[in-house]
Amino acid sequence: MNYGNREKTMKLVEVEIYGKKYKLRGENEEGYIKEVASFVDKKMKEVGKRAKTIQLSDLAILTAVNITHEYLQSRKEYKQRELFLDRKTKDLIESIEEEFEDMKF
Amino acid sequence: MNYGNREKTMKLVEVEIYGKKYKLRGENEEGYIKEVASFVDKKMKEVGKRAKTIQLSDLAILTAVNITHEYLQSRKEYKQRELFLDRKTKDLIESIEEEFEDMKF
Repeated sequence: MNYGNREKTMKLVEVEIYGKKYKLRGENEEGYIKEVASFVDKKMKEVGKRAKTIQLSDLAILTAVNITHEYLQSRKEYKQRELFLDRKTKDLIESIEEEFEDMKF
Repeated sequence: MNYGNREKTMKLVEVEIYGKKYKLRGENEEGYIKEVASFVDKKMKEVGKRAKTIQLSDLAILTAVNITHEYLQSRKEYKQRELFLDRKTKDLIESIEEEFEDMKF
């Protein structure tokens, strides 16, 4: 997703975030671009509820901070899960090799 | 990470995002909070370079959009990778079961 009109072949999708309309350009499908915008809108409303007197730019920055936190946490969890699955597969292969070793005659 | 001082036991960490200082509260370590802030700062500077006349709140919102896009894409990739690993493990187990079946006497 990009701001500006560098790539004229990209689709222009109108979305609404925190009550303001934006035209987003992206290579992705319209539905996906709307999903992204709706995610940001929801997160901004969550921050806005907790901080009623905050100015809009700070609210948006804190929203970006919260989304980044969620992103980095999820990345960490996936990496741990991947390591776990990798270890499990290796254990499985090792135990099978041992079985075959025992069965030799 | 939260805005405000709802949880007084949480650590307060001063960070700088796009030239402005913020005090972020979070349960996480100081290093992690600074990593999150530095990620947002970097992304805001990237958007700022492409859109020089944009107002700060819009720049921050578009940054949040870009981070969300990266987050959702990475989540999608991890899910696909997990499905792939899951299928590979099942195939491995099935082929081993077949081997054992052949070895019966």
